[in-house]
Amino acid sequence: MKFLHTSDWHIGRQLHNHSLLEDQRVVLGQIVDLAERHQVDALVVAGDVFDRSVPPSQAIELLDEILARLVKDLAIPVIMIAGNHDGAQRLAFASKHMQQSGLYIVGPLSNPPQAIRIKSKQGDDAVFYPLPYAEPALVRELYGLELTSHQQAMQVLLDKVAEDDSQGLSKVVVAHCFLDGGDESDSERPLSIGGADKISPRLFSEFSYTALGHLHGPQYKGQPHIRYSGSPLKYSFSEQHQAKSVSLVTITQGKAEFELLPLRPLRDVRVIEGYLDELLQAELDEQARQDYLMVRLLDKSAILDAMGKLREVYPNVLHLERTGLMANKQQLELNRQHMSRDEFDMFSDFFSQVSGEDLSDEQREVLLQTISQLHERVY
Amino acid sequence: MKFLHTSDWHIGRQLHNHSLLEDQRVVLGQIVDLAERHQVDALVVAGDVFDRSVPPSQAIELLDEILARLVKDLAIPVIMIAGNHDGAQRLAFASKHMQQSGLYIVGPLSNPPQAIRIKSKQGDDAVFYPLPYAEPALVRELYGLELTSHQQAMQVLLDKVAEDDSQGLSKVVVAHCFLDGGDESDSERPLSIGGADKISPRLFSEFSYTALGHLHGPQYKGQPHIRYSGSPLKYSFSEQHQAKSVSLVTITQGKAEFELLPLRPLRDVRVIEGYLDELLQAELDEQARQDYLMVRLLDKSAILDAMGKLREVYPNVLHLERTGLMANKQQLELNRQHMSRDEFDMFSDFFSQVSGEDLSDEQREVLLQTISQLHERVY
Repeated sequence: MKFLHTSDWHIGRQLHNHSLLEDQRVVLGQIVDLAERHQVDALVVAGDVFDRSVPPSQAIELLDEILARLVKDLAIPVIMIAGNHDGAQRLAFASKHMQQSGLYIVGPLSNPPQAIRIKSKQGDDAVFYPLPYAEPALVRELYGLELTSHQQAMQVLLDKVAEDDSQGLSKVVVAHCFLDGGDESDSERPLSIGGADKISPRLFSEFSYTALGHLHGPQYKGQPHIRYSGSPLKYSFSEQHQAKSVSLVTITQGKAEFELLPLRPLRDVRVIEGYLDELLQAELDEQARQDYLMVRLLDKSAILDAMGKLREVYPNVLHLERTGLMANKQQLELNRQHMSRDEFDMFSDFFSQVSGEDLSDEQREVLLQTISQLHERVY
Repeated sequence: MKFLHTSDWHIGRQLHNHSLLEDQRVVLGQIVDLAERHQVDALVVAGDVFDRSVPPSQAIELLDEILARLVKDLAIPVIMIAGNHDGAQRLAFASKHMQQSGLYIVGPLSNPPQAIRIKSKQGDDAVFYPLPYAEPALVRELYGLELTSHQQAMQVLLDKVAEDDSQGLSKVVVAHCFLDGGDESDSERPLSIGGADKISPRLFSEFSYTALGHLHGPQYKGQPHIRYSGSPLKYSFSEQHQAKSVSLVTITQGKAEFELLPLRPLRDVRVIEGYLDELLQAELDEQARQDYLMVRLLDKSAILDAMGKLREVYPNVLHLERTGLMANKQQLELNRQHMSRDEFDMFSDFFSQVSGEDLSDEQREVLLQTISQLHERVY
């Protein structure tokens, strides 16, 4: 049994208000090519397929295109679960009618969890258990059990998976959750505040493989067969040093082995630091100039239209920090914190979409205060 | 070959800000029951499945439920096209993968139009040609032909249908458009202004049957086998006298016969007129009291909280007109016109959704003026 494990596609996502659709088309195309080249028996997407519950129609078209290539053209079954970013009902509309074609989109959680047997070309079929992201309250209601934490909810689901009779075939769990000790990036939306979302990796040890989604850096937790594939693209500057990949998983007699197959983005996401003159004169190839950049300028004097000058050389500068101008180190740290605050970004995006106007300085201030008060109260 | 023809479900639609989802669940359930009782070979939905391109998730759930009953439980193939209200891409996401199960959701138009052969229990299969709603500009681009009107665009599509070799089987066209001479209701959104959307029924005469959507009243145009099924519910008070139904179509040796199967709404949509005291004392059964009502009050004196008093007896009064108070007949006519103006309703819904506030009197005035100026300019 050989399959590709990927997650967190976040189709439709923007990076600092810049659409990444073209970049997503390129890496998702690479994933299709890898699936074909390695003749896999299935492809697994462990949640956060779209970036929002109501994705833009271009994002829907892109996914449609990718699924047509995988499922129709290459006849590779696809198992896809909803993550915390996806609208579970919306993602899984009419999905019952797709299973016959080999497309398994699992939106809302069911009781018991679905079991999908995937045929292997080598004859060693495996059973996949897709567990879409679900709040503990939903699991409580669906299974009629008292539970409050993500850990308890996952235990309930995994007990069902353990009970299921797979007729001796390997069991693969597909889930979208936060395992204790995972390395976070700035582009993940916390599942809940204050650590209540954390699940012990021990819960998963008995299954042949656990294909996880949520964390954007590739990593394993507890044991090597309990893995996050990571996202196929860098979705924040905090991910600048991550190497993005898909995991090629081979299960032989119940034991999983894996290989990380690297993905090559259309444009890299990098942070560069220096004085304006240096940066403008740096010798770079065309590809590197096109990268998505955060620039930290060390110049201490005022510069007229620094962004305009930089963009003549680096057309995709997305963010500029005047590090040199920040007399006050604390202020700089504060600014960085603000930038990484997902809640702030999300609310301000939401506000401008709904009102057609950007937040005023006063409104930003109130919002920042509110968010930091909330954080203080919780931690 | 026996099938049900329905259209204009408009799932998620509201009537005067009142959700009709419960009412829609009831009539769509009746349609499923009729499909089962009459053992049909297929069910056709001729567009405007949802009311908006981005339907609310409850609307998606309802359609999911109805399709599961039809396609999974009863194994009745469903052919569904996008209408002018639907988001074609969004509606048809992953639809390629559903066809094997007997669910054909046709969103964006293709070149040539799709041909779907449906098996008949009587052995006389038929080929269905779903033509989703498409602007002439889209047809022009897709087919690389010079054309400007809806009539020319439809001619191009129907030429392709005529050319297609159905191996002697009956051809059924499914389309969402406005045939010349059709009876309009207040709840249809014009396809274009000034009559450029009109198509001659003659274009369709050679096919065994044409299943049309767009007009909400059941009717045929030109010849009886070129039919609008009408919507399953009354979506405006202008439809108060329409009897809603689905069309049961039987094709024998290329000739279609039909029967209108009536639908029974959970609540009727009616206009009542009278003096307040009379209306409050009228003897009505419980069912009639629950109807969605527009009330025209003839009283000439001021009445404190007329709506409140009426709702004690008729809980679903949706609109109140003080006919008796309108000294000026012209004003009344003007008000009725405004009420029926789809553009006004749509814009004001949109405005309150986006801004969270209703239009002010001044804004309403400007909007009404703008709309009527546009109409004067066009007609």
